Amino acid sequence: MIVQQAMLDELLESRAAELDEHDPLAVARARFVLPHAKVYCQSTCLGPLPESVPAMVEGAVSAWGHDLLSAWMDAGWWDSPRRVGDKIGTLLGAAPGRVVAGDSATVHLFNVLVAAARLRPERRVLLGITSQFSTVRYITDSVAGLLGLRVRRVPPEDLVAVLAATGDEIAVVIDEPVDFRTGAAHSLADVARAARAAGAVVVADLCHAAGVLPVDLDANDIDFAVGCTYKYLCGGPGSPAFAYLNARHHDSEYLMALPGWTGHAEPFEMEAEYRPADNADRARIGTAPILSMVALEAALDAFDGITIEQIRRSSLSLSDFFFACADRLLAGRVEIATPRQPDRRGGHIAVRHPDAELLVARLADRGVLGDRRPPDLMRFSLHPLTLTHREVLRVVTELAFVLSDRDPVG
Amino acid sequence: MIVQQAMLDELLESRAAELDEHDPLAVARARFVLPHAKVYCQSTCLGPLPESVPAMVEGAVSAWGHDLLSAWMDAGWWDSPRRVGDKIGTLLGAAPGRVVAGDSATVHLFNVLVAAARLRPERRVLLGITSQFSTVRYITDSVAGLLGLRVRRVPPEDLVAVLAATGDEIAVVIDEPVDFRTGAAHSLADVARAARAAGAVVVADLCHAAGVLPVDLDANDIDFAVGCTYKYLCGGPGSPAFAYLNARHHDSEYLMALPGWTGHAEPFEMEAEYRPADNADRARIGTAPILSMVALEAALDAFDGITIEQIRRSSLSLSDFFFACADRLLAGRVEIATPRQPDRRGGHIAVRHPDAELLVARLADRGVLGDRRPPDLMRFSLHPLTLTHREVLRVVTELAFVLSDRDPVG
Repeated sequence: MIVQQAMLDELLESRAAELDEHDPLAVARARFVLPHAKVYCQSTCLGPLPESVPAMVEGAVSAWGHDLLSAWMDAGWWDSPRRVGDKIGTLLGAAPGRVVAGDSATVHLFNVLVAAARLRPERRVLLGITSQFSTVRYITDSVAGLLGLRVRRVPPEDLVAVLAATGDEIAVVIDEPVDFRTGAAHSLADVARAARAAGAVVVADLCHAAGVLPVDLDANDIDFAVGCTYKYLCGGPGSPAFAYLNARHHDSEYLMALPGWTGHAEPFEMEAEYRPADNADRARIGTAPILSMVALEAALDAFDGITIEQIRRSSLSLSDFFFACADRLLAGRVEIATPRQPDRRGGHIAVRHPDAELLVARLADRGVLGDRRPPDLMRFSLHPLTLTHREVLRVVTELAFVLSDRDPVG
Repeated sequence: MIVQQAMLDELLESRAAELDEHDPLAVARARFVLPHAKVYCQSTCLGPLPESVPAMVEGAVSAWGHDLLSAWMDAGWWDSPRRVGDKIGTLLGAAPGRVVAGDSATVHLFNVLVAAARLRPERRVLLGITSQFSTVRYITDSVAGLLGLRVRRVPPEDLVAVLAATGDEIAVVIDEPVDFRTGAAHSLADVARAARAAGAVVVADLCHAAGVLPVDLDANDIDFAVGCTYKYLCGGPGSPAFAYLNARHHDSEYLMALPGWTGHAEPFEMEAEYRPADNADRARIGTAPILSMVALEAALDAFDGITIEQIRRSSLSLSDFFFACADRLLAGRVEIATPRQPDRRGGHIAVRHPDAELLVARLADRGVLGDRRPPDLMRFSLHPLTLTHREVLRVVTELAFVLSDRDPVG
């Protein structure tokens, strides 16, 4: 038995080494500061620190001290929401001028959801998924309350059928292509196609997709999208979020709820009436938190020269290997909540076990950092720019260890 | 004539030196990094850098790199909106637990304005001032549109009379105690008293008051207040804003528009229904931009041991002296738009001249940094923690110079 185990480990180890050797994104790992002797799988909460960040943040603090107000223009702070938005846009399949960074995903979601619903004043239903992230759920309910709409929630796999059957009632579909708990993914393209056929507006929450899953916003003709940047995009704790506006919503009537002065066509004229900018700048709301924005801009340098398709291939290679390791080392002892089918997977793997909380704590003691979502899920985000297959093997090996009799649970 | 001028200058100089010598806040100046050989009067746009900031920001970046997700709790990031809110609260006359930092003033204003209006569902008018800051104006209009309300705007000096005459129609009065252009102040206490008598809800925008003018939010029984922190509070470019919630709105029904998960009573439970925290945390919306928040928290150390009443006395001493210098050096050549009466002044002095734009540029060339507001105002913010009376004299002297024949304008 011990001999068999050793052979298994050896086999997996040599496979991991081989996969790492041929990983086209291996070069990107050096662009990050990574914790020593630990395996970091918490990027669904906070992506690791890109090495380009500290100097840029220090420079921004220094510019504040020495150049003061003039730094807003001279250091490029004023334009950073658009510049950063464009950088994010390249990973979302969005042309320049369609993404703007700033505020939080919560606020952007509220803002575009109001706009989306107002585009279909004759329809009364906001359609979401049953597994909505809590903020998405609360904001959906809030907008429904404000506009007198009804919320319907269905499992993501039913979205297309529901749109086909009752689409003429649906004003907006709010899709989250990756389930924040299980990591299950579904096709945003299919949902968008069904929504278009039904005449519904599409809002996508990309918090768990941005930077890890191709979403092709332009090609899929998504109306509005929002997302945070502190997960796979590694923008830092609470880094500014983003909003995507389809080009057809750039010069139409302004329908969003939050007309901040920074989104005005002529912000410094302080005009009495709101006149929105004729590009994604109209989704700018408050004054951008520059130190956090500068960190985000620097962080995105870690993605230079890397396409989202390459990232996706590496992501799937890591999760494929997770499944392969789990087959050999965890069989029957846990349930993997993430679908096995590659096109149904996002960027993280969720493992279900009644002792999830305790197991995550024991793993942390052993240098494997995952997180959990109540009641019974452990999440392991496999960041394609920073994680190796060897580390994936270590995650699964350590999980097998803490599950084993040698270290009893419960 | 030249002799007279020299005598005048000498008189003002000795008066400035005397005032500086007895300035109880002179000690605070050393807590800031200030531009060399320049007089910085742009704090209405961006307060100067407190010296405590750089190390704290560097520490936060380092914690992100080395402690990663665990820093959210271990470094105190999660609680920072409340902790920072409480620090700001001491300068607003607000007890702990009533102020929360985060998001932008625009977003907070929208959020609390919806709540305020919902508290008076039978009333149809939002009452603001004619000189509303552009964002306040746009957000007021947006909320009115969403809730089917009417907006009425009157000069600030008419608020009390209008509330007395037609108060039973007014759901909410949105007051800005300091005019962002002219620096004219009026009594928030008087407006609040009139609003209470009329049964209207009071929302205060404190962007140009926070950190420079006592507003006594608790004592004046203000319902909601919002403000930015990058002016007199010196939080840095685009630093997080704040919201104040009167204690009576802490455990009542949640009426705000933006129920973000971070404001939930049990945020990590990810419950299906929104249950607001029973303190100002319910005004937390998105995930806080931590690098900007850490800078703000460090910046507030510059106010340690200093009361808002002391700040106000120094502020008035500086603006008194501005008037004294202007009487002697500028008489008849410009109009000072800021009221002369001390209790009608905020923290900055506005000077009106048709060539304001050119004059501000010439002043900048000569090391005096003011800013302007179209069409014809120059603004000089007199930050009581960083500006000296000698510098005020220099501002007025240089303004006299650029206005003079020796350096013709126009």
